[in-house]
Amino acid sequence: MSAELGTLLVACPDRKGIVATLAQVLYGHGANILDADQHTDPVAALFFQRIRFDLSTLTTDRTSLETGIREVAERFAMDWRIAYGHQVRRVAIFASKQEHCLYDLLIRYRAGELPCEVAMVISNHADGAPIAKHFDVPFHHLPVDANDKPAQEAAAIELVEAARIDLIVLARYMQILSPAFVGRFGSRIINIHHSFLPAFVGANPYRQAYVRGVKLIGATSHYVTNELDEGPIIEQATIRCSHRDSVDDLVRKGRDLEKVVLASAVRWHLEDRILVYAGKTVVFD
Amino acid sequence: MSAELGTLLVACPDRKGIVATLAQVLYGHGANILDADQHTDPVAALFFQRIRFDLSTLTTDRTSLETGIREVAERFAMDWRIAYGHQVRRVAIFASKQEHCLYDLLIRYRAGELPCEVAMVISNHADGAPIAKHFDVPFHHLPVDANDKPAQEAAAIELVEAARIDLIVLARYMQILSPAFVGRFGSRIINIHHSFLPAFVGANPYRQAYVRGVKLIGATSHYVTNELDEGPIIEQATIRCSHRDSVDDLVRKGRDLEKVVLASAVRWHLEDRILVYAGKTVVFD
Amino acid sequence: MSAELGTLLVACPDRKGIVATLAQVLYGHGANILDADQHTDPVAALFFQRIRFDLSTLTTDRTSLETGIREVAERFAMDWRIAYGHQVRRVAIFASKQEHCLYDLLIRYRAGELPCEVAMVISNHADGAPIAKHFDVPFHHLPVDANDKPAQEAAAIELVEAARIDLIVLARYMQILSPAFVGRFGSRIINIHHSFLPAFVGANPYRQAYVRGVKLIGATSHYVTNELDEGPIIEQATIRCSHRDSVDDLVRKGRDLEKVVLASAVRWHLEDRILVYAGKTVVFD
Amino acid sequence: MSAELGTLLVACPDRKGIVATLAQVLYGHGANILDADQHTDPVAALFFQRIRFDLSTLTTDRTSLETGIREVAERFAMDWRIAYGHQVRRVAIFASKQEHCLYDLLIRYRAGELPCEVAMVISNHADGAPIAKHFDVPFHHLPVDANDKPAQEAAAIELVEAARIDLIVLARYMQILSPAFVGRFGSRIINIHHSFLPAFVGANPYRQAYVRGVKLIGATSHYVTNELDEGPIIEQATIRCSHRDSVDDLVRKGRDLEKVVLASAVRWHLEDRILVYAGKTVVFD
Repeated sequence: MSAELGTLLVACPDRKGIVATLAQVLYGHGANILDADQHTDPVAALFFQRIRFDLSTLTTDRTSLETGIREVAERFAMDWRIAYGHQVRRVAIFASKQEHCLYDLLIRYRAGELPCEVAMVISNHADGAPIAKHFDVPFHHLPVDANDKPAQEAAAIELVEAARIDLIVLARYMQILSPAFVGRFGSRIINIHHSFLPAFVGANPYRQAYVRGVKLIGATSHYVTNELDEGPIIEQATIRCSHRDSVDDLVRKGRDLEKVVLASAVRWHLEDRILVYAGKTVVFD
Repeated sequence: MSAELGTLLVACPDRKGIVATLAQVLYGHGANILDADQHTDPVAALFFQRIRFDLSTLTTDRTSLETGIREVAERFAMDWRIAYGHQVRRVAIFASKQEHCLYDLLIRYRAGELPCEVAMVISNHADGAPIAKHFDVPFHHLPVDANDKPAQEAAAIELVEAARIDLIVLARYMQILSPAFVGRFGSRIINIHHSFLPAFVGANPYRQAYVRGVKLIGATSHYVTNELDEGPIIEQATIRCSHRDSVDDLVRKGRDLEKVVLASAVRWHLEDRILVYAGKTVVFD
Repeated sequence: MSAELGTLLVACPDRKGIVATLAQVLYGHGANILDADQHTDPVAALFFQRIRFDLSTLTTDRTSLETGIREVAERFAMDWRIAYGHQVRRVAIFASKQEHCLYDLLIRYRAGELPCEVAMVISNHADGAPIAKHFDVPFHHLPVDANDKPAQEAAAIELVEAARIDLIVLARYMQILSPAFVGRFGSRIINIHHSFLPAFVGANPYRQAYVRGVKLIGATSHYVTNELDEGPIIEQATIRCSHRDSVDDLVRKGRDLEKVVLASAVRWHLEDRILVYAGKTVVFD
Repeated sequence: MSAELGTLLVACPDRKGIVATLAQVLYGHGANILDADQHTDPVAALFFQRIRFDLSTLTTDRTSLETGIREVAERFAMDWRIAYGHQVRRVAIFASKQEHCLYDLLIRYRAGELPCEVAMVISNHADGAPIAKHFDVPFHHLPVDANDKPAQEAAAIELVEAARIDLIVLARYMQILSPAFVGRFGSRIINIHHSFLPAFVGANPYRQAYVRGVKLIGATSHYVTNELDEGPIIEQATIRCSHRDSVDDLVRKGRDLEKVVLASAVRWHLEDRILVYAGKTVVFD
């Protein structure tokens, strides 16, 4: 994202005149709208908008612009946030023994697909160390002691906060985070579940799928909440399978889904495309 | 299916020599194997095979061939069945108010996609009558009286048995069949459920999908059992949706899935491609 | 589409202030913006927007609103058009011997999926007559005389113009339209081609696909131009095939694609979601 | 693949008795058939079969078994080949500057998805060296001198032959191989083309797709022949795109397709699932 870009996200009760008012404020400060996407939920009577604008033509400054937006936001009872291209988001990847999602994110990161800085990899297994090293990303090995899980979480929190992490990505991280941890990082933790939620919640979804004899398997990326596998869904995909597929085949096929579905969620989050409300997401594409 | 075709389906405990023995029996009677598809479930240690063969070159006759197969079947403890191309299967379509699956099946039937005779349409609504008439298929209106549902089922059973129906297709039929009815027609009832099972079982799956905020909706065709929405799955498909889709949009998108997923299941059943075991299906394609 | 809805489509050279200016004009007349979707092509430096608005809150009238828009349009060198919900578009379906797309469009029409009036079916074969009759749509049989094709086209033009047709849908219509015909109806003719264009242009695409041994077949809906199969693409889809599929199997599988891909294009056209430029389309979804 | 597995692939004119005869020969030597897949091309009147069998139960030995098969093969004019699980295939990956397919293959290789030994990576760019090193695979940098391309090919041939390579995978290798090179390695070179062939042959397919305004992009893996982009297709996939996608977006989306489509082709080749005839493939899944 160019340093001269701004992105404004708003959510508010639906009312007449919102689009025109916001456009007018931006125009009044000399910000050129590049892109404006919008959604109205007629059932909930809510309005959502994402506006990307060019800052290089600002006739005032960022502070004045934000003051202007704040006034409008109060009038329309808006939740809003603004992001600037020069503020690079900092990401921590949490991994366990399985390495396909970890590799995938780091390869995309290096290819420039993910507008962020991957500041660290944290894992409860040592296996990821050479991978992180290969991509020049700091690695922290935090093994989980069955008797003292809180200690590991405390160490993780310290690392994450010291590094001012904006987003935590659970790349097939096999530990369940405590309510305290989840509460601390709110809508800033993205997980990948290896099924088409809400089918096959919980453990061993590929085995569950095999036993049920489904003809498609899926993967789901979602924000983490304290209801396991119940968080707002960001992206999903499925792939065909058949009676010929063993559980191992399902696992292999599923890996390809997991990588793509997780990477899309992370990219959309970093591009400020996602709004959460009522337990689900609006994803502006 | 040409009148000169035979299809043999077998299922048995996995053992050495099954393929060779069956091939030898068919060859010994002059039946030329056109196609042989096979599956071994290593977990359950079961063997499945579908063999299509040409009868026009038989050097004995059908009775002798079946005797030969029966001997082999006993030796290997096989479940088996044989179908001949000249025996056209008779189908009854059960429908309710929604007409898209009914239309779809009848159009495919007329286009020659479904090797069967659609012998009747039964509906608890009168709306389907002109549709059945347009395709020259007998129509029976069996309205459901809330106080006397068994009477309607009894009437349906009488019609189905009098017409020697081989397969009942529930084309968005909105009544739940009694255990007695299901027991009577065993694995000869195919239903379409408008979700990606096992997600969103029960009523109003599109509304459930909307509330949960999924990014794909699905449809599932399955054999009917007395556990609602739990029968062996035959085919499934999904389609993308987003926050922009209202429940009505999901319903509209879902119709396209339902038609294709139900029609595939019906065609595969009629082509003797499906074996059921352990609550799931082997579908030889 | 509700009678109180308006839809404005604009295309113009990209410039600062367009979004704000248009929003301001609509707001100034009391029109409430329900939906605004926008696209900027950075290569061509062009701006595109689709705005849906509520007319019931207009404080002036349609004429004043259009005068306001016209002034803005001149200032920004815009191409623009406006559609109102009370103006129901009139559609003519052209068909030949194959009936699956014809059936599909008429079923969707009756189900309320297509906001239009299907005013007539024209075919060079008589087979479609009972289908049109079943759906209460006028049918015109215009057989093509090899020696006098222009006469048929002249008759078609007369019918279409007399009925003030807004959109012609070629539902597997197997005659090539003359440049004169195409010129007359501009971007108001939608065709379905049974391949993934630009692969397999011309005749017998399924046979071409079979010979080439592709692993997917496709279908493409597009606006008709005088370069055969070269018109702006509206929608495409593909489905898996394999060595097992005969040409007939490809035809059967392809039908399902053709129906869905053509119906989407027709619906999007009727909902004023499509803008054409540089030989391609912007489809606002 | 277990060391005790054998795979027999045959192709011959279609004739009565082939299936039974082959099954009988294997059974006679004590080889237990685990899996038999078969295809008859009724147009070309050709028969194809893949049989996987268990060698641990052989009552004779491999030489006798092959003698038996050879006799049958002569009688039926069969092309045939046999592969044993203990013979691990040796693979060379050719790469250029783009690294996504190279990474993908090496990650799958390490995860055990590809039954082979990746014996070397050859690249005309040095960038791949640390990647190969990370996965402990020998790397050879063979830069292409515009004035002396034959020298690089000669060096590659020497490396490949010295290492007794069974399969060459072109993982976005951007040099065109000479007819001499292609002739030497016959059907043992697999390439990935970044379009849905036969659409967009030649250079810059994503740019071509952008200009044409297609709504799906694709990728195709195929065996290499001396007709550029005309070799037998092994696998294809497509993904949706829209007017919003720049050429860079298409490139990014395409990478995900390319990885999956190339890896499937390589895996199927290594599992002896592919037969080539008449410029296309039979892929037994």
